Amino acid sequence: MDERTEIGTLGEFGLIDFLTKDIELLHSSTIVGVGDDAAVIDNFGKQTVISTDLLVEGIHFDLSYTPLKHLGYKAIVVNISDIYAMNAVPKQVLVGIGLSNRFSIEAISEFYGGIYLACKKFGVDMVGGDTSNSKKGFIISITIIGEVRPGKFVKRNTANKGDFICVSGDLGGAYLGLQLLEREKIIYVENPGVQPDLESESYIIKRQLMPEARRDVIEMLDSINVIPTSMIDISDGLSSEILHICKASQLGCLVYEDKVPIHNDTRRAAKRFNLDPLTCALNGGEDYELLFTINQSDYNAVFNSGLVSIIGNMTSREERVKMILISGDEVSLSAQGWNTFHK
Amino acid sequence: MDERTEIGTLGEFGLIDFLTKDIELLHSSTIVGVGDDAAVIDNFGKQTVISTDLLVEGIHFDLSYTPLKHLGYKAIVVNISDIYAMNAVPKQVLVGIGLSNRFSIEAISEFYGGIYLACKKFGVDMVGGDTSNSKKGFIISITIIGEVRPGKFVKRNTANKGDFICVSGDLGGAYLGLQLLEREKIIYVENPGVQPDLESESYIIKRQLMPEARRDVIEMLDSINVIPTSMIDISDGLSSEILHICKASQLGCLVYEDKVPIHNDTRRAAKRFNLDPLTCALNGGEDYELLFTINQSDYNAVFNSGLVSIIGNMTSREERVKMILISGDEVSLSAQGWNTFHK
Repeated sequence: MDERTEIGTLGEFGLIDFLTKDIELLHSSTIVGVGDDAAVIDNFGKQTVISTDLLVEGIHFDLSYTPLKHLGYKAIVVNISDIYAMNAVPKQVLVGIGLSNRFSIEAISEFYGGIYLACKKFGVDMVGGDTSNSKKGFIISITIIGEVRPGKFVKRNTANKGDFICVSGDLGGAYLGLQLLEREKIIYVENPGVQPDLESESYIIKRQLMPEARRDVIEMLDSINVIPTSMIDISDGLSSEILHICKASQLGCLVYEDKVPIHNDTRRAAKRFNLDPLTCALNGGEDYELLFTINQSDYNAVFNSGLVSIIGNMTSREERVKMILISGDEVSLSAQGWNTFHK
Repeated sequence: MDERTEIGTLGEFGLIDFLTKDIELLHSSTIVGVGDDAAVIDNFGKQTVISTDLLVEGIHFDLSYTPLKHLGYKAIVVNISDIYAMNAVPKQVLVGIGLSNRFSIEAISEFYGGIYLACKKFGVDMVGGDTSNSKKGFIISITIIGEVRPGKFVKRNTANKGDFICVSGDLGGAYLGLQLLEREKIIYVENPGVQPDLESESYIIKRQLMPEARRDVIEMLDSINVIPTSMIDISDGLSSEILHICKASQLGCLVYEDKVPIHNDTRRAAKRFNLDPLTCALNGGEDYELLFTINQSDYNAVFNSGLVSIIGNMTSREERVKMILISGDEVSLSAQGWNTFHK
């Protein structure tokens, strides 16, 4: 205990790697452990998929502009998204909360109202949890359990060279919604009398406060009998997630800027904030769309669904993780952003 | 949101009841939901048992006298205890942590060292989790998954009139260990130079800092083919847990003071603290022993195991929840303590 290395030197993923590197799995029923969106447990018939999340006030959410009902809804949805990212169906959830006496029962009811709304919408049973005091701030712990037909679950490390890269919906909106809410908060603190007009920004605000998990995409894939070769949900931005798939699958990829889906409202908002919409899509995070790879033979079936954009393809590791810009330039993608290098 | 009712007016169990009263279970696979030690999920062969816990610094633990390795060990053990309390076998665990930058990697390694020690000892695979920042203090979220042969799990609401009441190990030690550590903390703050002699108190300190889940009791019950009629683990004190079983099973009970197991070291420590050892056993909490009821015909087999004390029997609800003292007086048990009423 004499040595002291700051956690910041590792970063979150480095810390997870560090903490889990010595794990030995004991049970043949433990099919997927640490290192993916969720764990898979064989239960002789169906496989159980389970994931957990810890959300802390002041770190993951700001109650000054997040209604508690939206917070409850989002807490469930982002966990359901992890289950979908395994190509599984969410079934049960456990919710632990820690709260200080600054919260009233009515406030917590609002929060659970959002939780139950999401549970109902996505067909999930709440089956347990824990309530606790907190000295300061609101703490939320969510554990979600799903099931999947044996062998049908999809990991991150199984993409193949040549596979097409698909992304559902559009990207960058949730990040711009956050920028807007943060800006309005500062304006409000300085001028409490000013009422913001957020009507015209409803799309990006909804993307931030009330994201949806892509049940429709998972059901579409099932209906056309396509199992992605790898999948992950986009919580930290497209770049970071693509890098996860490339690293885990020991591959590179080529993504085309003009194929990255960005909503017009997102583009407009980015312009007002003097931000590059592509950067918002690549690094913004919290969109909770699905990123997955498919075999080339599944291209038509997936493309015709109308739910996904096909944004590139997997290459060999030597070809690295790259994007072709509309300008024709090639850039290398990184988790923190992207570094231009001209050919 | 105009109304405001303080959470304190409900208490923890009241709050849980309030928050979960409108839950509708959707899946036939959800066999046991909120309201027991863990949830049971049918997976066509074995049933999955799952429980979650949120532990907050300053509320559940005090790092000024709790070594992080012990904290990690205890965090797992107390969750495993919930799985045993369902008569199930723990299999997998997920651990979420939230921490401020006051922690070093070495400190967190100590914590995970304790976690992995407990996982190894109890045969549990760590299969997931989450790491997060915390603005203040250390937050731990544990989710534990176990499995059980269909129909073998044991709930709280299935005790029968006439059943014998059994408790494993001995009670009150963990509470006295906490009293001792709290006292030494105050002495240390006032006189940092004083080195406490805790050698003679090692039993109660171990009960507080390094409790064990009663795997041996569950294995014993399995080996003699006894399935308890109801079961719960003792985290909040014997009185509180007996009341849970009585309330859930709509029964009363009669417990005998002279049968309540209390270790000699616990009695001695209680005397030094001017506390009644029986009160410590009834209301102290954190012993993580198992409290269960058995059919009268199983008395001999269970008694001969040498692992449990048989402390009384279940009665009808009209006879209430009572204890016969050594003096011959009858007292009524309550969750906060016990109220004497003379016959």
